[in-house]
Amino acid sequence: MVMCGNHLSMYRSNWPADNGMTMTTNNDQMNFHAYMQDLGQQAAQAARKVCMASTATKNAALNELAQRIMDNQRGLSKSNQQDLQAGQQKGLAAALLDRLELTPARMQAMAEGLQQIAALPDPVGEIANMATRPSGIQVGQMRVPLGVIGIIYESRPNVTVDAAGLCLKSGNAVILRGGSEAIHSNRALGELIKQTLKQVGLPETAVQVVNTTDRDAVHELLTMNNYVSVIVPRGGKGLIERVSTDATIPVIKHLDGNCHVYIDRDADSDKAVAIAVNAKTHRYGVCNAMETLLVHNDIAHNILPRLATEYAHHAVELRGCEKVQTILQAVTPASEQDWYEEYLAPVLAIKVVASTTEAIDHIETFGSHHTDVIVTENFSTAQHFMREVDSSSVMINASSRFADGFEYGLGAEIGISTDKIHARGPVGLEGLTSQKFIVIGDGNIRD
Amino acid sequence: MVMCGNHLSMYRSNWPADNGMTMTTNNDQMNFHAYMQDLGQQAAQAARKVCMASTATKNAALNELAQRIMDNQRGLSKSNQQDLQAGQQKGLAAALLDRLELTPARMQAMAEGLQQIAALPDPVGEIANMATRPSGIQVGQMRVPLGVIGIIYESRPNVTVDAAGLCLKSGNAVILRGGSEAIHSNRALGELIKQTLKQVGLPETAVQVVNTTDRDAVHELLTMNNYVSVIVPRGGKGLIERVSTDATIPVIKHLDGNCHVYIDRDADSDKAVAIAVNAKTHRYGVCNAMETLLVHNDIAHNILPRLATEYAHHAVELRGCEKVQTILQAVTPASEQDWYEEYLAPVLAIKVVASTTEAIDHIETFGSHHTDVIVTENFSTAQHFMREVDSSSVMINASSRFADGFEYGLGAEIGISTDKIHARGPVGLEGLTSQKFIVIGDGNIRD
Repeated sequence: MVMCGNHLSMYRSNWPADNGMTMTTNNDQMNFHAYMQDLGQQAAQAARKVCMASTATKNAALNELAQRIMDNQRGLSKSNQQDLQAGQQKGLAAALLDRLELTPARMQAMAEGLQQIAALPDPVGEIANMATRPSGIQVGQMRVPLGVIGIIYESRPNVTVDAAGLCLKSGNAVILRGGSEAIHSNRALGELIKQTLKQVGLPETAVQVVNTTDRDAVHELLTMNNYVSVIVPRGGKGLIERVSTDATIPVIKHLDGNCHVYIDRDADSDKAVAIAVNAKTHRYGVCNAMETLLVHNDIAHNILPRLATEYAHHAVELRGCEKVQTILQAVTPASEQDWYEEYLAPVLAIKVVASTTEAIDHIETFGSHHTDVIVTENFSTAQHFMREVDSSSVMINASSRFADGFEYGLGAEIGISTDKIHARGPVGLEGLTSQKFIVIGDGNIRD
Repeated sequence: MVMCGNHLSMYRSNWPADNGMTMTTNNDQMNFHAYMQDLGQQAAQAARKVCMASTATKNAALNELAQRIMDNQRGLSKSNQQDLQAGQQKGLAAALLDRLELTPARMQAMAEGLQQIAALPDPVGEIANMATRPSGIQVGQMRVPLGVIGIIYESRPNVTVDAAGLCLKSGNAVILRGGSEAIHSNRALGELIKQTLKQVGLPETAVQVVNTTDRDAVHELLTMNNYVSVIVPRGGKGLIERVSTDATIPVIKHLDGNCHVYIDRDADSDKAVAIAVNAKTHRYGVCNAMETLLVHNDIAHNILPRLATEYAHHAVELRGCEKVQTILQAVTPASEQDWYEEYLAPVLAIKVVASTTEAIDHIETFGSHHTDVIVTENFSTAQHFMREVDSSSVMINASSRFADGFEYGLGAEIGISTDKIHARGPVGLEGLTSQKFIVIGDGNIRD
């Protein structure tokens, strides 16, 4: 049996000689430290080649992978069926099984996503701000890949392809650690990616799927500071909190999407109703859905009954402050905990405020710095809100649902950051790069 | 005795009523947790005001503080004398005492530094990349302060003023924790800053000097994720390693300055000699000094003897690979450890390489990603080196000593980052900000 460098069986601490055993779930015998360090080292070596790859080669890889996905739908479905059957046996919830499934439409969406990434401009090598200094040197900044990205995600196998595509296009190597429920689908996708990389002449280890479902492997990944530049966790709050706590490598993350719409007293009522309904009801389980509605006292009597009718159509449960309770029937009293809540469900907290300042204070106190919206026709109020609200996206007269890499024109996104360092908001190709200084002289020395 | 909010005596766990005791070094009775949490909370509150301050107000503060420093030189000298005397009694090294001293020239330099920061453009509120999307929304990015910056530094009291100036101008609040040797100087400077902030109408807690020398206070500062956005350590490697290990908040840091100059076979000899001498001998104890010289085999016989004569004039000790030993007399054999070394002294490691690729491999293997230089007249070789070397500054035909915020035109710098995330190289005002997305609609909702 020939073993390639990454074959997990190499890392079994008491591997019996030549028994022909293939990778199993018998993880307890493996040396995760050695296995992950090896992945890291290979990724770092690959990164030095990928960072120099031409745009044409990277795009060829993306388009070729799209084609391979379309050509291998049956094989992918078969691997995916293994995951679905295992999931059913384990009694996974229907919603989780749905996320896990690779339908023909989803495979096509993955392929199209890759083609879209291929069509995006290559950020690597872009030179900005080049200027001559009094000393005679020219100084500028060149955009360069970060190196090795670690992605940790849950059940959706499409993340394997999306993340690989974004990391490749931005000149990075990537280590992908998907959810245990999707291991067969991810391995099959990983195999297609490997074939593609080989075909276009890029290192096969530029994209590596972690070939074990053991959590010790995740811990290794989060602490390989020598090899990995940044970790991007994608999934529920529990995953992201665990990753943030354990990682010694910088993490690009978003924890919560507790988004607000504030309807100012100078709001246009029709725009306000349209936005407040869209932001809540367009989709419930997404991070950019509105969770708390703030309404200026002067407009509350006019606008809340209209909104209540709309929300009733959508069967949205309303939880209001005392003032809201005096205006609307059928509203549950809101507790302080409601202001912190990311419902991800047809539930909405509503508070009446006396001023824009009170609205901003509420957002800064209870919000999660994700996406916050003001609806107003007043120019100065809009400017004040836009400048002072400290969120990754601040919007005027638009639905919070627009907070998205595609809608912003970044193309696909690797995630949405609510951190303040490096990248804020939807993170596309640029968020997977940084800028180094370049200096050009002609023998210049410092006096 | 009237106590202001930050007076440490408030936090003594068994503070005896009204004994008129002033702050002493009797730190063991203090509750550092409560004290530092209070500083953090006040800083966070101040940050919300400073981020909205007008450019005129911020510049008035900077110029006013410069004036106060010039007007209070005698008082500052007196406080500084307390530190110098304590330092002498503790037997501090002469170099440390030198760094600690506030001479008239240094006080003037601090004042001028503030005036220079005042003259820099205000980065806050700058809007970039505003574009209309197919949905009709306009999307752009607004530059905003990070919030609260924590600076941890060693004996130079001028950092107190430089860092306060940079943080204020970039719209941030700052918590300054200087070295215990400089506590009296830092308190006196902190007092002038407080008076200045009050005078211009900014919150006095926008700049807070930690009023204790206890290390527990540092640990608190490094873990106040609720209040502090980023930590910038400034000092020796030991300090930076401790801060990086203990911090749960993102850290902008540089650990090592193991800088290289590579003299390519197509180098102009005169430029090569000028740069290699300047990069090593201009100053020895600085992070952007060259520590290893790489020379292409084809030019080594020609250039190394010339360089050896120059280095002999400067009494620089040379440590060479075997090849260098065959070309030069009076060269110590270099061990592998020498390639890792940041000497910060008149010592230089020299290696002969067979190609640009070998030079780059050496830099990537042993370097610290700070500043690396190629000397060459060959365009393609220069392009290859510039793109592939993964350092915060990559230079062609210029001395590594140019890696500096002033030389790059950033104005003053808060530090030099060898990290890849957020900021690389000299970090000026822009490195203390980030960009949030702003979206402007006219009632737009998502389909």
